[in-house]
Amino acid sequence: MTDATNNTGTICFRYANRDDLPAIVALLADDEKGKTREDFCDPLPEVYYAAFDAMESQSTAALPNKYLLACTDEVIVGCLQLTLIAGLSRMGRLRAQIEGVRISSNCRGQKIGEKLISESISISKLLGASLVQFTTDKTRKDAHRFYERLGFIASHEGMKKEI
Amino acid sequence: MTDATNNTGTICFRYANRDDLPAIVALLADDEKGKTREDFCDPLPEVYYAAFDAMESQSTAALPNKYLLACTDEVIVGCLQLTLIAGLSRMGRLRAQIEGVRISSNCRGQKIGEKLISESISISKLLGASLVQFTTDKTRKDAHRFYERLGFIASHEGMKKEI
Repeated sequence: MTDATNNTGTICFRYANRDDLPAIVALLADDEKGKTREDFCDPLPEVYYAAFDAMESQSTAALPNKYLLACTDEVIVGCLQLTLIAGLSRMGRLRAQIEGVRISSNCRGQKIGEKLISESISISKLLGASLVQFTTDKTRKDAHRFYERLGFIASHEGMKKEI
Repeated sequence: MTDATNNTGTICFRYANRDDLPAIVALLADDEKGKTREDFCDPLPEVYYAAFDAMESQSTAALPNKYLLACTDEVIVGCLQLTLIAGLSRMGRLRAQIEGVRISSNCRGQKIGEKLISESISISKLLGASLVQFTTDKTRKDAHRFYERLGFIASHEGMKKEI
């Protein structure tokens, strides 16, 4: 993985391991929607460890389903879930899918999000993906502008159903 | 997998195997957008077989990434890609994701699509998923109405970027 710099120093990128889970869940909860969706307490609920193990069970080196972390001075300041999904459509095009993008509220405005997305795209290209995709809640207007600046196009409806 | 009936007889559902690829690609190409995106010829381009093998390599019994087929009288009349994606957000919620939904143009109007989606939801629930999601091109207005009738909500923007 590459390093990048911002005005607070070097940002390092790496995949998460099990020990990172409390810091990741803290980030997931550090968000307008996430604060009502997550249960960040000590000890961390076992469901998060089980979910991490499930992610690992479906990850391969070629087709990861992993959290990518942005760190400054070894402190985790950003995360996203990166999933490579093989499929048949569009002549068997490999897709990269992003989920759970979060930047620590203490570190916003430093382009860490942009660098983290850029790193996830670099990894995806190296793995052979030619499309990156995600869904974002329609109420997150600031996020849409951010992603549009990075070249994403809101060409699709993101449809969901609780089952 | 379960069977269902429609006015042309029993519909059977099963996961695709490698021998089904020509029929699946024919379905993917039997579509306004798909016809320009796929290369359905005989022999089928090797990229489809490679993509199928990649899907198999990231499938487990608990977390499949497979094509689900609808068949009548052993003829494949519909397909969709079903991918179970483990993740940390929303307390480690397991998501089911759908892609590449197609019903043979000869068999539309027989509720095969509805039954195929319903079967994919049943499988996803059995595997522990509590959310099913997909993106659909904003120009596919008929498809949106179809999915909204099935209880899907267009709550998200589906953002994509070619890389």
